[in-house]
Amino acid sequence: MVMEKQVIESAGEKETGRLEAFSDGVFAIAITLLVLELKVPEVGTAGGSPLELGKALLRQWPSYVGLVTSFFTILIMWVHHHAILRNVRRTDAWLHFANGCLLLGITFVPYPTSVLASYLKTPAAKMAAGFYSGTFVVIAICFYLFIRAAFRKPLLSPDASEAFIAKTCHSYMFGPPSYLLATLAAVIDVRLSLAICTVLWIFWATTIARNTHV
Amino acid sequence: MVMEKQVIESAGEKETGRLEAFSDGVFAIAITLLVLELKVPEVGTAGGSPLELGKALLRQWPSYVGLVTSFFTILIMWVHHHAILRNVRRTDAWLHFANGCLLLGITFVPYPTSVLASYLKTPAAKMAAGFYSGTFVVIAICFYLFIRAAFRKPLLSPDASEAFIAKTCHSYMFGPPSYLLATLAAVIDVRLSLAICTVLWIFWATTIARNTHV
Amino acid sequence: MVMEKQVIESAGEKETGRLEAFSDGVFAIAITLLVLELKVPEVGTAGGSPLELGKALLRQWPSYVGLVTSFFTILIMWVHHHAILRNVRRTDAWLHFANGCLLLGITFVPYPTSVLASYLKTPAAKMAAGFYSGTFVVIAICFYLFIRAAFRKPLLSPDASEAFIAKTCHSYMFGPPSYLLATLAAVIDVRLSLAICTVLWIFWATTIARNTHV
Amino acid sequence: MVMEKQVIESAGEKETGRLEAFSDGVFAIAITLLVLELKVPEVGTAGGSPLELGKALLRQWPSYVGLVTSFFTILIMWVHHHAILRNVRRTDAWLHFANGCLLLGITFVPYPTSVLASYLKTPAAKMAAGFYSGTFVVIAICFYLFIRAAFRKPLLSPDASEAFIAKTCHSYMFGPPSYLLATLAAVIDVRLSLAICTVLWIFWATTIARNTHV
Repeated sequence: MVMEKQVIESAGEKETGRLEAFSDGVFAIAITLLVLELKVPEVGTAGGSPLELGKALLRQWPSYVGLVTSFFTILIMWVHHHAILRNVRRTDAWLHFANGCLLLGITFVPYPTSVLASYLKTPAAKMAAGFYSGTFVVIAICFYLFIRAAFRKPLLSPDASEAFIAKTCHSYMFGPPSYLLATLAAVIDVRLSLAICTVLWIFWATTIARNTHV
Repeated sequence: MVMEKQVIESAGEKETGRLEAFSDGVFAIAITLLVLELKVPEVGTAGGSPLELGKALLRQWPSYVGLVTSFFTILIMWVHHHAILRNVRRTDAWLHFANGCLLLGITFVPYPTSVLASYLKTPAAKMAAGFYSGTFVVIAICFYLFIRAAFRKPLLSPDASEAFIAKTCHSYMFGPPSYLLATLAAVIDVRLSLAICTVLWIFWATTIARNTHV
Repeated sequence: MVMEKQVIESAGEKETGRLEAFSDGVFAIAITLLVLELKVPEVGTAGGSPLELGKALLRQWPSYVGLVTSFFTILIMWVHHHAILRNVRRTDAWLHFANGCLLLGITFVPYPTSVLASYLKTPAAKMAAGFYSGTFVVIAICFYLFIRAAFRKPLLSPDASEAFIAKTCHSYMFGPPSYLLATLAAVIDVRLSLAICTVLWIFWATTIARNTHV
Repeated sequence: MVMEKQVIESAGEKETGRLEAFSDGVFAIAITLLVLELKVPEVGTAGGSPLELGKALLRQWPSYVGLVTSFFTILIMWVHHHAILRNVRRTDAWLHFANGCLLLGITFVPYPTSVLASYLKTPAAKMAAGFYSGTFVVIAICFYLFIRAAFRKPLLSPDASEAFIAKTCHSYMFGPPSYLLATLAAVIDVRLSLAICTVLWIFWATTIARNTHV
């Protein structure tokens, strides 16, 4: 009987296996492509002095901020994706579609990150920050659709955690309005908007740390 | 006996395992590289006002259309690839070759997408749309070769679904002529051509949703 | 006993598992990055006519030739890599190092492909073709080191095929001199050099098709 | 009993499975993106002679040095990552976070490599070499945090090697100070700094070769 259970389980595993592998690939590539946005600074025609290069590298701080924020945001989303699918055994067309929308949002992240880094020190910074936060409003909505698709009875794994599902459904409802707040905050102050985004990924990080240890 | 079946099955699994892993990688990378085509707009020398940046971001709509259309097209192709190989247990040189041709077509997609996005608002749009749809004619032919290679008796898994195979073979015959129609439509009107492409990926999405639930 | 064999096997599998997964990733990315080399052609200032765009797309044929040749060369190398590691159960430092050298060669391929595509229609074509073929001399040497590292007694899987190993060791000895010939041929004629490269990947494709069906 | 052990083990495996798959993806992409830094040299307007192209390709040696050094450094880090996680069965929030910091460092490597290659032959070379080595100081610290997170009792696999863990903890303490030395050496001489970096990856390679064969 142990045997048969295992056979059934490994069959169930397999169905989400390639969905997870594909999603992992997309997450991994999106997170790594962020570095392509960093451009080697040009210092003078003959290369300039070491000090000039050092200053030029420091002057790129908006790119570093963008890289680190987007990196950890994508990483946390991956950890959530991982924790959610641990409770799912079967896939169907809706789950594939919801997952697809989510992945589209995630592959898009390097673009608003680039826009933000390019315009953070210009008068257009507010629009760039709004575009950046606005992207996460869309991603938060996609994440909500994704858990609604994933946490349907026929797809759930037999050892799915009821407590985890309930908590996740609850905390994910705060996603879209929180990022909407960050987007609106960009009208007032760019730093406020980015601070909300940073607080939010720390919030999501602690949420998953708590929820998976129930 | 359950034991032995499992041993045999896991051996059979393994043979397509790395083919699937490699293909997943190529699909995942091709779908994520689409975002590299989006370029940060340049607004004035000092950065311009937030409104100007907003307008510049909106003016890039052909790139967004291209990104979304190509993203879902590649995603649907991945779902089909996934559903097809679920019925296959063994690989041989022909399947590797047919899969290779298919993957070549898929890695190529970001290029016609770029061309389309660059020329959609110019007088050369018809050629760009024809080049875009034409790429999918080639991919549809590759997909047809791929299922002919995959659905041969010696390669099939013992639990392959006869109904799925028959339906897939039938619906895939419509692939090349449909995309040829989209390519020819580009001569008359660009929007007509792109509309056919969009209708087609919705058609493929519903096809796979129906076929896998038989 | 069947049980124990399986436990041992799955433990052995695991050791090369991550090596294969990592290598698959590198192969998949290298093969997909080839498309980034294709640049959207610029046609006039206002975009030009559809015919001009068509001509500009056709004028890029050296890039398409480079893309297709390099794509299938990397694909065939991946199939070989796959077939070789199917006979291997354990890894050690030497195998990791030899595999690393091989992967370095493979990640390098998009670069000589770009150089070849950029200079194929210029007077410097011979150097570009020599650089391209020369890269494969180095890769062929790495492949030879790789099979010598992989096919050592303690690493072999208990079900390794003696016939496959003997044939592979034999045919791989022809790799470095054949590509050296292609490199030298570049001095006489560019097309001759590329023709040898094309004949060679067809040769490797048939080799693997034959060897794996013994 | 063999059966039950296997069931437990395969359940334990699964927990680090996706962490490893995701990390493998990031390592594989970061190592492959290094090649994008190589730019096709421009030789005259009409393409120049073969000799000129040859010289231009040779003149890019700092890029090749950077590519090879960074490639093997990332590869060795991947082998270490692989060897460390072989002893780990469970994951938790801390391990995910430490792994995330490590991956951030690794995805960053192509950028200092580009900076180094661009400025190696200019007066600003010292700063570029310091920036390059400095990146590895940060990565070495992340690696140390990663092993502290991974080698905690509740996460360890039942067949974890005590000897490997002790040796790894010991040798990893030398990481940050060694790379700090390389960074400081950049103030005196660029070649000295890069020589220390090269010696260090050979040291790490031999360390892992020795430690995994206890």
